[in-house]
Amino acid sequence: MKKKVNAAILIIGNEILSGRTQEKNIAFISSWLNTKCGISVKEARIIPDIEKTIVDNVLILSKKFNYLFTTGGIGPTHDDITAKSISKAFKVKYEYHQEAYAILEKYYGKKKFNDGRKKMAMMPRGAKLIYNPSSAAPGFITKNVLSLPGVPSILNSMIENCKKYLVMGLKVHSNTINLYTVESNISKKLNQIQNKYKKKVEIGSYPFFRLGKIGVSIVSRSTSKIELKKVNKDLLKLIKLKKIKILKV
Amino acid sequence: MKKKVNAAILIIGNEILSGRTQEKNIAFISSWLNTKCGISVKEARIIPDIEKTIVDNVLILSKKFNYLFTTGGIGPTHDDITAKSISKAFKVKYEYHQEAYAILEKYYGKKKFNDGRKKMAMMPRGAKLIYNPSSAAPGFITKNVLSLPGVPSILNSMIENCKKYLVMGLKVHSNTINLYTVESNISKKLNQIQNKYKKKVEIGSYPFFRLGKIGVSIVSRSTSKIELKKVNKDLLKLIKLKKIKILKV
Repeated sequence: MKKKVNAAILIIGNEILSGRTQEKNIAFISSWLNTKCGISVKEARIIPDIEKTIVDNVLILSKKFNYLFTTGGIGPTHDDITAKSISKAFKVKYEYHQEAYAILEKYYGKKKFNDGRKKMAMMPRGAKLIYNPSSAAPGFITKNVLSLPGVPSILNSMIENCKKYLVMGLKVHSNTINLYTVESNISKKLNQIQNKYKKKVEIGSYPFFRLGKIGVSIVSRSTSKIELKKVNKDLLKLIKLKKIKILKV
Repeated sequence: MKKKVNAAILIIGNEILSGRTQEKNIAFISSWLNTKCGISVKEARIIPDIEKTIVDNVLILSKKFNYLFTTGGIGPTHDDITAKSISKAFKVKYEYHQEAYAILEKYYGKKKFNDGRKKMAMMPRGAKLIYNPSSAAPGFITKNVLSLPGVPSILNSMIENCKKYLVMGLKVHSNTINLYTVESNISKKLNQIQNKYKKKVEIGSYPFFRLGKIGVSIVSRSTSKIELKKVNKDLLKLIKLKKIKILKV
């Protein structure tokens, strides 16, 4: 029988922390894990390209969660130190991965296969490859840590190739109702509904601004479709009672 | 004399971790801190709306860095537990903040000032207010922890009001050169330049795809304009040697 499976995401890269680059991989990976694998992301961290920081975070997060996804730091330049740091974290050799080496050599051709490109075949000993259909350089999995590149378009093209390494978990179903109201108008009743379904259904409330109108999205999430239906019924009662207009999407 | 000042960001909210909402506050806060305050963000974390998780992370990050910015969880609904959790973390009373109460009462009017809205005046004892020009409900600072709302447009309107609580740090200057080349073509030389200016200048290399062309952005960052100029000179030498075209922006 399927169980709850969770994961964390570790974004490695100074460019995200400096604000130069807008982070985009967390939402993508989380949505994919949620909808395709029944895996819930419980924490994400963004850290700089510093070896000790990467080592510490890989050890903490890979122990605390079923899977850890890292993004960034697997390219050819000096600031790409993810593979080396993961080797250090798990105390395994940092060496050429034979298959990765062969893939890259074939892709670039022997003459153009320079040191920078060879570096992308350096991985922790025992790593298994996550194939890359867009730019050849593979990602890899070391124990329960899956390492992907930072460039969103390349990462997106590789994500399906992570699936074979993952144990699928219980799918979390969700239900969203968008209302033309303000949070404080429903917060008390909403709290009562949340308390009634404690631990079975997680209810979130998110204000939005659309076409100049203020509204609230109520998102209910649960592994049980039956409990979700019960919550929905209670929400519709509350909406009727307060005479709130529902926004059809 | 100004010193290096750093900060961490803690994003609180299930909606970010589930992938439902694209995270946008980290890049905004980081850029503002960098350019307006000379403060470097060294770590960011995204965590769910769970009290123990918030307490633990507030304690760890507020101790490790000069400032901690939290976003999210300060609205009127049951899943808004940031103020309560920060009170727990610092073992201070969670109570009505008199000035915040007065601001909110005036904004909504006595009749419409219901329990949900009153909740937004509940803060850790001793907190000071961060005024909110868009929707009245203030943020607050507790010790070195600045708490802001999660909605980007509201957060953005409040950020200038954080300034009076911050010690300004040494400004980090940056220089970007966009090149029509691939990383592996320059990675070896770039590594030599980075080693030459170790600790003085931080050099990052980021591939981009623009108008169907592949390129690399070289970003140098330093508190010293003089060192930055030296790096720039070395980079231009490398670019000339390799006959690389610079992309004018």
